Amino acid sequence: MTFPTRGYAAQSATTPLAPFQFERRAPRPDDVVIDILYCGVCHSDIHQARNEWHGSMYPMVPGHEIVGRVSAVGSAVTKFKAGDTVGVGCMVDSCQHCASCNTGLEQYCEQGATWTYNDKDRQDGSLTFGGYSERIVVSDKFVVSISDKLDLKAAAPLLCAGITTWSPLRHWNIGKGSKIAVIGLGGLGHMGLKFAKAMGADVTLFTRSPGKEEEARRLGADHVVLSTDAQQMAAVARQFEFILDTVPSPHDLNPYLDTLAINGVICLVGLLEPLEPAVQTAKVILGRRSISGSAIGGIGETQEMLDFCAEHGIVSDIEVIDMKDINAAYERVVKSDVRYRFVIDMASLKAA
Amino acid sequence: MTFPTRGYAAQSATTPLAPFQFERRAPRPDDVVIDILYCGVCHSDIHQARNEWHGSMYPMVPGHEIVGRVSAVGSAVTKFKAGDTVGVGCMVDSCQHCASCNTGLEQYCEQGATWTYNDKDRQDGSLTFGGYSERIVVSDKFVVSISDKLDLKAAAPLLCAGITTWSPLRHWNIGKGSKIAVIGLGGLGHMGLKFAKAMGADVTLFTRSPGKEEEARRLGADHVVLSTDAQQMAAVARQFEFILDTVPSPHDLNPYLDTLAINGVICLVGLLEPLEPAVQTAKVILGRRSISGSAIGGIGETQEMLDFCAEHGIVSDIEVIDMKDINAAYERVVKSDVRYRFVIDMASLKAA
Repeated sequence: MTFPTRGYAAQSATTPLAPFQFERRAPRPDDVVIDILYCGVCHSDIHQARNEWHGSMYPMVPGHEIVGRVSAVGSAVTKFKAGDTVGVGCMVDSCQHCASCNTGLEQYCEQGATWTYNDKDRQDGSLTFGGYSERIVVSDKFVVSISDKLDLKAAAPLLCAGITTWSPLRHWNIGKGSKIAVIGLGGLGHMGLKFAKAMGADVTLFTRSPGKEEEARRLGADHVVLSTDAQQMAAVARQFEFILDTVPSPHDLNPYLDTLAINGVICLVGLLEPLEPAVQTAKVILGRRSISGSAIGGIGETQEMLDFCAEHGIVSDIEVIDMKDINAAYERVVKSDVRYRFVIDMASLKAA
Repeated sequence: MTFPTRGYAAQSATTPLAPFQFERRAPRPDDVVIDILYCGVCHSDIHQARNEWHGSMYPMVPGHEIVGRVSAVGSAVTKFKAGDTVGVGCMVDSCQHCASCNTGLEQYCEQGATWTYNDKDRQDGSLTFGGYSERIVVSDKFVVSISDKLDLKAAAPLLCAGITTWSPLRHWNIGKGSKIAVIGLGGLGHMGLKFAKAMGADVTLFTRSPGKEEEARRLGADHVVLSTDAQQMAAVARQFEFILDTVPSPHDLNPYLDTLAINGVICLVGLLEPLEPAVQTAKVILGRRSISGSAIGGIGETQEMLDFCAEHGIVSDIEVIDMKDINAAYERVVKSDVRYRFVIDMASLKAA
């Protein structure tokens, strides 16, 4: 028996999101049925709804920062039961047997992970629909537990903005004694500050906007460097073992490369555009520096992050909106006018 | 007492190299006086002689792949004595106390290493003159031992082409079980093949030129991939944990990024130009791949490499020339018409 489900969908690249009725599949043996409480609004939702990355499929129900409560489970599910508080992030499936999947890196599945929306189900080929909806039906392998100690609405962005910044910080072993920097103070950047600080690192925020010092310090920055100020940049030359670059639009990496120590790494997590202007390779070669990148994180490390958040009381800074206000929220995200993530209260869907 | 010394120098960016008489300094307590037997010809000699990297200082005596015999040592030198076979590479000094120098990475000295030629001596400010000359006077800290088991003329290129490829292979822990590739079959590339093979890796050569299979296999390649053939490239998608990119001119990294495994690294060792065309960051992010670089190597690891070469009988493939033929050799290097390194027999200087 399928579930009639209400949500909000884009019907094309140029139409605003609007109410949409669809069916969630009858649970397979490994499925978890989740009543969605909250769903975060990620900039990538907008890119995809508007077909800015091409290949978008409609109707599209965006949303991959999902927190909800289990309402039912399939016959083979033992890890979750009705009433559990859970989360779903950017993926709902993967091949489960390639080298990446076998090492907990489902996001790098060699056959391609199945994305939570704007993708096709691996078994029946149906379109996947995301979290801007009443409920979702997901394989238990892609469901994570969320502690009720956390403010659940503020926990929603952990499922994408959180894991996207957590995973590289962990992969590059950031911890006590590390000297790192975060570029950009948005949905990703503010989580980067919180995590790096909680991990024990000495944390610098690079920002192009003056006047963010107090806010950055509140979020975990020990230092703030105005990246447009050549003197401030020169003062941090060769300082950082790791830079988490959260900026989603093209920007010049060269000034930041100068601030990396020998063997330092700048890791891109927000930029899906070509790397322009051109990187000066001498800055890379004469210091054995690396330009790297990282995409979200695996399911195991998503759970690890959520457990860490519960222990350290870390959530996202958010602004809660009603479902009907999503299109206005999109406009504000595009203008970076949000501190730091919109989260849809899905109870508002009933009124929408 | 200084040493009147004959060599070959460029007097300007546009004049050919010609005989040049100069003085080597009186040995300081830590100096080693070396009669030069052989000096390799590196493409960077040409770039600098012709001021293609800007800031060249004249007269310039190029040459930083130096093999010779110790003729005298300063009062404080205990590690070398007259008659020893030794080498000098790209550096003749560094600050000796920064974080890089303290960890054996003199090439990344925070104050800048002192280069073997086209640089200024740290103590007296005089121009440094390189290996296209009868002798050189160098601090013992920048002199390495060379086994007489090696063919000394063919060992000369180890001091730059050798260490430049050795250092990244060691830094990224290439060994038995590693699956790596080398881009380009020149002075650097052919050493990369030899080292990677001797380290136990499975080695692929990427080349743009058909017909190099037999030669590549002789040098250590297990496989050869024609990088201009899309089908051959597709067949090695996601294969390599490490790619050593020895190409010295601008080239598109994007097709090679596709051949890196998850967490794979492409390491630039020959390219000092801007990174164009632009790298597609999605190829980096969706696989946690890295674009890195490496410059020559420290003195300690240069000695380590030379000891490995003595043990494994590894030298460069060379063509010996007389000093007077250097300008014709430069033209052939520019045309990549050399297998794989020119080495000047310095005995020919007497006749030049």
